[in-house]
Amino acid sequence: MTFELTVLGSGSGAPIPSRYNSAQVLNVHERFVLIDCGEGTQFQLRRNSINFNRIELILISHLHGDHFFGLAGLLNTMHLLGRTKDIHIVGHKNLKVYIDTIFKISHFKPGYSIIFHPIEDNQEGEFLDMNKYNIYIFPLKHRIVSCGYRITEKQSESKIKKEFILENSPNIEEIKAIKNGADFTTDDGKLIENKKIMIAAPPPRSYVYASDTSYYPEIIPHIKNVNLLYHEATFDQSKYINAREKFHSTAEEAARIAKAANVNQLLIGHFSARYKDAEVLLNEAKKIFPNTIAANDGLQVIINY
Amino acid sequence: MTFELTVLGSGSGAPIPSRYNSAQVLNVHERFVLIDCGEGTQFQLRRNSINFNRIELILISHLHGDHFFGLAGLLNTMHLLGRTKDIHIVGHKNLKVYIDTIFKISHFKPGYSIIFHPIEDNQEGEFLDMNKYNIYIFPLKHRIVSCGYRITEKQSESKIKKEFILENSPNIEEIKAIKNGADFTTDDGKLIENKKIMIAAPPPRSYVYASDTSYYPEIIPHIKNVNLLYHEATFDQSKYINAREKFHSTAEEAARIAKAANVNQLLIGHFSARYKDAEVLLNEAKKIFPNTIAANDGLQVIINY
Repeated sequence: MTFELTVLGSGSGAPIPSRYNSAQVLNVHERFVLIDCGEGTQFQLRRNSINFNRIELILISHLHGDHFFGLAGLLNTMHLLGRTKDIHIVGHKNLKVYIDTIFKISHFKPGYSIIFHPIEDNQEGEFLDMNKYNIYIFPLKHRIVSCGYRITEKQSESKIKKEFILENSPNIEEIKAIKNGADFTTDDGKLIENKKIMIAAPPPRSYVYASDTSYYPEIIPHIKNVNLLYHEATFDQSKYINAREKFHSTAEEAARIAKAANVNQLLIGHFSARYKDAEVLLNEAKKIFPNTIAANDGLQVIINY
Repeated sequence: MTFELTVLGSGSGAPIPSRYNSAQVLNVHERFVLIDCGEGTQFQLRRNSINFNRIELILISHLHGDHFFGLAGLLNTMHLLGRTKDIHIVGHKNLKVYIDTIFKISHFKPGYSIIFHPIEDNQEGEFLDMNKYNIYIFPLKHRIVSCGYRITEKQSESKIKKEFILENSPNIEEIKAIKNGADFTTDDGKLIENKKIMIAAPPPRSYVYASDTSYYPEIIPHIKNVNLLYHEATFDQSKYINAREKFHSTAEEAARIAKAANVNQLLIGHFSARYKDAEVLLNEAKKIFPNTIAANDGLQVIINY
């Protein structure tokens, strides 16, 4: 089952040609979740051949422009491309004010419905139950209210081994019983234990998006053991003061969070425009947490079990 | 004196990789006027090496998203780049609602002032007097209120011929008198007529931006004899019905307006995404008005006397 991230924008405040503003798409079993939507996200979706119509949910972390100024254009273009399917949007309640204002002043009535799910300040816990995954939210620490997201695929069903079916041709009643935990007796009277018939479903995978935020160890309980953590790393440690002042993190801090939370892999991004490439940031993080990768626009990460 | 247009976006509703949404920059004697500001305008400004800080005025034609969704990001980035200079913005009064909403919900306080000049519905006439040029406005005909702009450079001063100065070395008093229309008497008593001393200033040049609009001959009195007319040409004549329904123009209609208004040159743009290249539109317009060119992103047009 697909669980794959595509980075659309890995830059911070002011976009530069090589790094668009924040935006990512998570493919969960072919359902697409857009996370943040900086200006130009619709161009980046096209560049990465991602069908707009397959996005069913948009999560906005916070209301700094580099994280949501692309939303108006995307919603507009979705309509022009003939979308009729509902779209879910999650964000701070003021995001609804933005959407309503845009629609009103531009006389725009999309041919689809928006189902808006407002987040209260400092809200945390299970937030949204989608068909193929759940959304869990937790507060980050930034100049303005900022929200972290944990997206967890739903537990898939255990399966009956193919070899068992080929050898024993169970009927529908027997298959139902096996799925409910029953053992099986073969035609020649041999008992096969249920655990030898079934393949246990793999544990559900989780992805966490934590941006923008200061170094904030309070998030650790919410992100323990996840398969992939995206944590902003706007600065390197020599710019520690800038990070503190602007409520951003350094690469070292992102790595310390990843280590303490025992995540499998760390992805850093939201790099300040001062960094021509991310090497200094990546090296800094790897010293603390070796399994770190650096975001770039177009990067695809397969999230493994 | 420079009077030059750069096209940043020549597409219509849904942007495509080769055509961004509407935006242009007019350089009037090194003062920059941005006309419309579709999503991604800030990227296109960078691509065309146009210094954001030199933009002193932004004109927004109407409040369809493809003409102003880039404004929030541009204003944001101008602040991040350290702008302190005032910026003038002209547009429908609801544009102010958009700007105020964006600023409020994103807790954004730019380090510069915005001087907003609201346009009333159907307003026409001289609108804004800038240092190097004047802005004249007139109504277009679209689904929503849409405004055409005529930008006219200010008359430059007549000049005294260099040869005259070299030959006769007039003193400051004499120069003042000549500039006020006086003739000149040489040391050996010869009279030189003022008209033989002065070079008349060239007539002021004008540029008109007319998009989005239906075919609307009522604009002709406002755009008579201008040096360059930008007129939208979303469709070709075979899509006449689409043009009528959506209050857009065909290339033929744009050319008929140009011809009737006796403009010097016609620039067509705002092409529907269905056109892979603009050839069919350009050919259609040229049949009616030969001095037509087609917009593409990055096109520069020097506007001649």
